[in-house]
Amino acid sequence: MAEKDKDNIIFIGNKPFMNYVTGVVMQFTTKNAKEVIVKARGKFISRAVDVAEISNKRFLEGQVEVKDIAIDSEEFKNKEGKQVRVSTIEITLTKKK
Amino acid sequence: MAEKDKDNIIFIGNKPFMNYVTGVVMQFTTKNAKEVIVKARGKFISRAVDVAEISNKRFLEGQVEVKDIAIDSEEFKNKEGKQVRVSTIEITLTKKK
Repeated sequence: MAEKDKDNIIFIGNKPFMNYVTGVVMQFTTKNAKEVIVKARGKFISRAVDVAEISNKRFLEGQVEVKDIAIDSEEFKNKEGKQVRVSTIEITLTKKK
Repeated sequence: MAEKDKDNIIFIGNKPFMNYVTGVVMQFTTKNAKEVIVKARGKFISRAVDVAEISNKRFLEGQVEVKDIAIDSEEFKNKEGKQVRVSTIEITLTKKK
């Protein structure tokens, strides 16, 4: 993905929920993005699905659809040097033609 | 889906995590299922992704893959009669050919 497209990636964390929904909606409306990717790790995965669903069904109804959903795992060492695994999700939303 | 195939659906809740992983693995191994569907709602969605990832990557490595992931919303009235929305996920795992 080209550098200039990075705005299209919304990474879900613990900011207020509507910040993320607004982020997705703005990308499609004012920024005219063709595609937005909602990403999350661990416990934020449920939230990413909520953000995608509410953006699609409440704010962009009929305009946007889920193009692809990918799940994966990342392994890393935590502060105590222990190897830990965390699940990830990437939900790709795309403008309907 | 036929009645006899319902064993293939693993619905994720708050039982001990490994119960669900064992459920998925058993379906593919002792029950010889071709496909297993991991379903969850709301906050259990993150857990469903963990169950799918750990089953696939730790216990059934190279034997099973993610065939499809679908997200959706369900609306219902809660105890107070208020209309609420909850996100859902269905992760379909399938035996590699």
